[in-house]
Amino acid sequence: MSDTKRLLWRDMTVFDGLHELPEPMAVITRGSRIDTLCPMREFDESLGQGIRDAGRGGVMTPGLIDCHTHLVFGGNRADEFEKRLEGASYAEIAKAGGGILSTVHATRAASEDELLAAALPRLQALVDDGATTVEIKSGYGLTVEDELKMLRVARRLGERLSVRIVTTLLGAHALPPEYEGDSDAYIALVCDEMIPAAASEGLADAVDVFCETIAFSVDQCERVFQAAEKHGLPIKAHAEQLSNLGGSAMAARHGALSADHIEYLDEQGVIALRDAGSVAVILPGAFHTLRETQRPPIEALRRHGVPMAVATDANPGSSPLFQPTLMLNLACTLFRLTPREALAGMTANAARALGQTGFGCIEEGANADLCVWDIQRPAELAYAVQSGRLRQRVFQGEPTHG
Amino acid sequence: MSDTKRLLWRDMTVFDGLHELPEPMAVITRGSRIDTLCPMREFDESLGQGIRDAGRGGVMTPGLIDCHTHLVFGGNRADEFEKRLEGASYAEIAKAGGGILSTVHATRAASEDELLAAALPRLQALVDDGATTVEIKSGYGLTVEDELKMLRVARRLGERLSVRIVTTLLGAHALPPEYEGDSDAYIALVCDEMIPAAASEGLADAVDVFCETIAFSVDQCERVFQAAEKHGLPIKAHAEQLSNLGGSAMAARHGALSADHIEYLDEQGVIALRDAGSVAVILPGAFHTLRETQRPPIEALRRHGVPMAVATDANPGSSPLFQPTLMLNLACTLFRLTPREALAGMTANAARALGQTGFGCIEEGANADLCVWDIQRPAELAYAVQSGRLRQRVFQGEPTHG
Ligand SMILES: [Zn+2]
Ligand SMILES: [Zn+2]
Repeated sequence: MSDTKRLLWRDMTVFDGLHELPEPMAVITRGSRIDTLCPMREFDESLGQGIRDAGRGGVMTPGLIDCHTHLVFGGNRADEFEKRLEGASYAEIAKAGGGILSTVHATRAASEDELLAAALPRLQALVDDGATTVEIKSGYGLTVEDELKMLRVARRLGERLSVRIVTTLLGAHALPPEYEGDSDAYIALVCDEMIPAAASEGLADAVDVFCETIAFSVDQCERVFQAAEKHGLPIKAHAEQLSNLGGSAMAARHGALSADHIEYLDEQGVIALRDAGSVAVILPGAFHTLRETQRPPIEALRRHGVPMAVATDANPGSSPLFQPTLMLNLACTLFRLTPREALAGMTANAARALGQTGFGCIEEGANADLCVWDIQRPAELAYAVQSGRLRQRVFQGEPTHG
Repeated sequence: MSDTKRLLWRDMTVFDGLHELPEPMAVITRGSRIDTLCPMREFDESLGQGIRDAGRGGVMTPGLIDCHTHLVFGGNRADEFEKRLEGASYAEIAKAGGGILSTVHATRAASEDELLAAALPRLQALVDDGATTVEIKSGYGLTVEDELKMLRVARRLGERLSVRIVTTLLGAHALPPEYEGDSDAYIALVCDEMIPAAASEGLADAVDVFCETIAFSVDQCERVFQAAEKHGLPIKAHAEQLSNLGGSAMAARHGALSADHIEYLDEQGVIALRDAGSVAVILPGAFHTLRETQRPPIEALRRHGVPMAVATDANPGSSPLFQPTLMLNLACTLFRLTPREALAGMTANAARALGQTGFGCIEEGANADLCVWDIQRPAELAYAVQSGRLRQRVFQGEPTHG
């Protein structure tokens, strides 16, 4: 990539990461950056002299950011999905080796290359739907070696496709069977071995926990956060998905980047997120798949000005949905976000949930991660579910699609 | 297309339209037909002599059949979707010209070429997701000329892409504003002018009605069916979507191909469908978009052996969802169909809902409309929502994708 490659789009309807700009714009990139963003009525054709024409019209958004995925895993759970619909009970499925531990088993059994090969088409699906940044969590290895293996696969995925990968260590995702009855000992392993190892190898950009009655307590999660802080890693939490334990508020006290799921978050928890500047990550795919009825407190989040992000939560159990734009539709239809909020949730606010600046927005100086869509209004992305609308996808100034 | 072109697939997991076959199969096409379907263990390599190798492994299904769409329309309703989420009431939206009449207005204002250009990317999206047959209804013109215009566009779409188009006249979709207060007069127009004109021009393969309190009464719909019968056209009905008027049972008495939506159908109605051999077409996209809570009587339909089809209901208001495989997921997750039932609903039973035989199934002599998917089990199509899995799409023996 030449650092001085320049591209020019004319007459674009621009969603800048937070809002739709009020008039048609010209956009010029230079190398991997957005160089110029100016209203068409002020655009002088001499500005475009010698710059490659990249197109005209349509909607330009930042490249989509999927800030919460579990994209690396062994096997899949289609059989379990089918058995449940054929009437098998949860107990029968667990007895037949189903549930998250079946994914742990398959992930442990797979080599790095096998996990990479299995994850590539899933990542490709996200990319083909407009993603330019994807967060990937560990959490199905649950041993030091298997968690590091997952994170290495995540890093390697970023070398295979034109997409930015952000990694998160989620050692505290589930209690592995060999620690049954001694979850404190497993948490000690996460704190004393996994986090130091991931940090020293530079494999984790953040540390996550699953704070829930079926996973780990608030106290245990706080220990994980303290270990993360010791190693200079930012933190985030799966919290208040199935009950209100106060995990989000505890995470906020530790300055968490985000609290994710949060269907059961109360107003105090919302205020805690606001005070900490944490992002509320809502995950309508799991809500849909699990047929939940408790919606996140969208109205309170709005009232208190907590930024909301939206992500696929792509995973083999509760959200086998590898399509970012579908989440825009689900966030609006199921959670009553506006299209503007949903789009901000997969661009500017998603970048913030990853602790990143300089992308997820269209402004001069930002990274040139862009999508151009064959539609007239940004709201159409949330309204209709339809392939083929992504005209161009630009990653760090390089067109990679269309 | 040479009539003797032959293709051979080996080691295929075959879903034949109703069931997954119990062992790996070899499939040979000859011209536009399926010539041979035989278990691999009986397959003799001499059988493949001189036949072009088309691939090995993966899942083969019949090409998908979307048996209920409103794919031809002017405009879109993204603004209305957005306004509603921003808090506008239905009354405010209606006052601002929203609702179905906004689509009628835009459809009347559009030329045939404009409607064609607008519908093509939507049809392409269905095709890229595996559809080889798509039903398209009129119903946004509501004058003789505008209804015929829509049907002509539907026919022309089938000449533009490699897909079979089946057309349905849905003149009795909504009361046009110029007939306000005199719905019987509009029904007379449908019966006395629209149906004869569509029949004489060969533009309609069937006639449909919307039987509902907000549309037309059972009596009015019966008049439409009688007119259709006079012209030798098969019938179907949108019925029991929002209330139980008995439209499905009346349609069954007239030998309807299908009753569609049927969330409020009672057991008597189910029995009426069974006795008539009608198909129950379930439409989870509208259920999702309208956030309905009343589910169709799946258990009763199963118990009485009524074949169930699944379709997108693709339309600008209640189901702007142009993705057949998404419907497989929604049918399972929202309506608790099994993956096998959902797939039969978009293959064998969908063909039956269109009154067609010879496609929608994989058997010797059937049309070679096929999809080959990069998955291991048919259930994965309903379990995961993911692009990029369609390895090959074959329309009448010709590979058109991958
Ligand atoms: Zn998650
Ligand atoms: Zn319909």
